[in-house]
Amino acid sequence: MNIDMIVAAAERASGHIRRTPLLASPFLDDIAGRRVFVKAECLQHTGSFKARGGWSAVSALPPDQRASGVIAYSSGNHAQGVARAARAHGIPAVIIMPADAPRTKIDNTHALGAEVVLYDRAADDRDAIGARLAAERGLTLIKPFDDPQVIAGQGTAGLEIAEQAQEYDIDSADVLVCCGGGGLTSGIALALEARAPGLRARPVEPEGFDDVKRSLKSGTIQRNPTTAGSLCDAIVTPQPGNLTFPILHRLCGPGLSVTDDQALHAMALAFHRLKLVLEPGGAVALAAALFCSGDVAGDAVIAVASGGNVDAKVFAMALARHG
Amino acid sequence: MNIDMIVAAAERASGHIRRTPLLASPFLDDIAGRRVFVKAECLQHTGSFKARGGWSAVSALPPDQRASGVIAYSSGNHAQGVARAARAHGIPAVIIMPADAPRTKIDNTHALGAEVVLYDRAADDRDAIGARLAAERGLTLIKPFDDPQVIAGQGTAGLEIAEQAQEYDIDSADVLVCCGGGGLTSGIALALEARAPGLRARPVEPEGFDDVKRSLKSGTIQRNPTTAGSLCDAIVTPQPGNLTFPILHRLCGPGLSVTDDQALHAMALAFHRLKLVLEPGGAVALAAALFCSGDVAGDAVIAVASGGNVDAKVFAMALARHG
Repeated sequence: MNIDMIVAAAERASGHIRRTPLLASPFLDDIAGRRVFVKAECLQHTGSFKARGGWSAVSALPPDQRASGVIAYSSGNHAQGVARAARAHGIPAVIIMPADAPRTKIDNTHALGAEVVLYDRAADDRDAIGARLAAERGLTLIKPFDDPQVIAGQGTAGLEIAEQAQEYDIDSADVLVCCGGGGLTSGIALALEARAPGLRARPVEPEGFDDVKRSLKSGTIQRNPTTAGSLCDAIVTPQPGNLTFPILHRLCGPGLSVTDDQALHAMALAFHRLKLVLEPGGAVALAAALFCSGDVAGDAVIAVASGGNVDAKVFAMALARHG
Repeated sequence: MNIDMIVAAAERASGHIRRTPLLASPFLDDIAGRRVFVKAECLQHTGSFKARGGWSAVSALPPDQRASGVIAYSSGNHAQGVARAARAHGIPAVIIMPADAPRTKIDNTHALGAEVVLYDRAADDRDAIGARLAAERGLTLIKPFDDPQVIAGQGTAGLEIAEQAQEYDIDSADVLVCCGGGGLTSGIALALEARAPGLRARPVEPEGFDDVKRSLKSGTIQRNPTTAGSLCDAIVTPQPGNLTFPILHRLCGPGLSVTDDQALHAMALAFHRLKLVLEPGGAVALAAALFCSGDVAGDAVIAVASGGNVDAKVFAMALARHG
C-alpha cells in the first residue's frame, strides 16, 4: 500500500466519483470551540464513500478477470458501491445479503443492477454460498475493507481533504474518520501522510464497539464482544483488518468513541446547520468533533461524514430528540 | 442589469460564497424519465442562495455608505444572507422581523450578529419603523429581490450552472428555479443568456401562488389574491418585482406550479436519493422536474434546490407522508 496506488485510483475514478465538498457553519464552530470542517461523503454517489472503494477495486481488475463479474458480501453501503461500479463497467455483480436486511437496501442494490442472493443468517453458511457462486461463475470477491485496491479507493477522499485543507489554510488538524474495519481511515491516513503531513487521521467508533480504539491502544488487534445492538450498523465490525490495522497503528492518533445519542445529536445538527442527511454511523466523527472537543487538538478539526443511508424513522427520531 | 454586473458580483464573492455542487441520482432520473441535475443551493452559507445576493449588495456599496450599516425586512432567508454579509464586512445590520416569525429564524439572525427589531404585524407599520431607523442611523436598505446588485448576486449561481452543465455535456435543457419575487430566476436567466444560451430558465411556484406564471402568460404583472396558506413560505410574494419581471418576461420559458404535497414528496426524495435537506419552498423546482415531466423539454433538466431552512417538524411530516 502506498500513495501511488491512491493516486492511480483517483485517476481511474475521474469523472465517475464526486469530489465532495468541505462544509462548515459558524454554529458548529461555537459548539466545538474551534473551526469544524465536514467532508460531506454522504453526497458521494450511492450515499456513502463506499462508491470510491467499489470503483477502485472493479476498475483495477484485469479486463479478462473483470468480465466474468464480481461478488460481495454486504447488507448496505459496500453492496451499493460495488453494484454501481459493476454496472458502469458492464459486468455482472452478485451481492450476498442477509434476508432480514432493510428492504430499501435490498431494493437499491437490485436497482443498481446487481443480482441479490439472500441467505438466512440462522440457517445458511454465507461464505459457503459465496464460494460456490464465485467458483461456478468465475466471480472475483471484492472485500469491504481488507483489500489494497479498496483501501486505495477510500484514500482518494484523503487526497481531496489534503487539497481542501490547503484552500482553507489548515496546516495542522486532526481528521476524524468514522471507522468500521478501517478501510476509509487507513486510506485517508496514507493520503495525508504523503500530501498533508500536518493532518493526522483518528478513527471514531460507537461506544461499546471500539475495537480499533482498543487495538491502537494495546498495539494488537482486539475484538468487539458483540456486533449487535448499535444504531451505527454501518461501522460495526468484529475487529480491524489484517491489512488496515498496521497502517492505522503506524499513522493514526488515538481513537475516539461516542454514544448512539451523541451520533443522533450530530445528525440533528447536520440537518439544521449543514443541510446534510447523515446516517448514525456516518455521524460519529462529527459527534466527536462537537462533543469530545477536549480530546481533540488544534484550532481546527476536520470530520468525515461518511454516509447518509438512513431510514426515515431513524432520522425522524434524531430530529425528535435533538431538533 | 447585464452579465458584467454578475461577473463582478462573482469576483467580489470569491472566497466568501460557496460554489455549490450539481448532484444527481439514477433513481431520480427514473422518476422523471430524463436526466435530473440538482443545483444544491441548500448547501450555500446560511442554508440558501440568499447569501449570494446579500453578499453582492453589501460588498457593492461605496465604503463610506456601507460603514453606516444596512437594514432589511425579512422573516427568513434574506435576513440571514444580509446579516452574514454585514458581519463579515464589520458593519451593523438591522433586520426588521415580525414578532411571530419562527423562533429559530430570529435566533439565527441574532447569532449572525444582526440587531433584530421585532414588530407586531397587526398593530405596527413595518415600513415606518424601517424608514425611521434608516434615517436616524444612515442605514442603507437592502431589498430582497428588486435590487440590481441583489439580482447580480443571485445570478452568480447561474454562472456556476453554465459551467457545470458544460462539465456534464448538457447543451440544451430547462433550468427550473424556485421563484418568489424573481431575484434568483432573473439573475440565473441573465447568466444563462450570456454563458449557456441552450439553457432556459423557468420559474416554479406553489399552486395558488403562481403570480409569476400568470404574469408571464399575460405579459403584465399579476398579483396573488393572498400570500397566506402555503407551506412554501420562503417563495410566496405578492407579485413579481418591477426590475425582475421585464427580465423574466424577456428570457424565461413558461412558469410551472406544484402542490404543497408534491413539494413534500420532492423533499423526501432529496432526503433518500441526494442526502440533502430541502425546505418546501426550496423543493418546488425539483418537484416540477420529477412530477411535471410532461411540461418539460429535452433529455436533461436542471432543478435549483434553493434552500434548506426547514423546521424539524415540517421535515418529519414530509418523511412520514412520503418516506
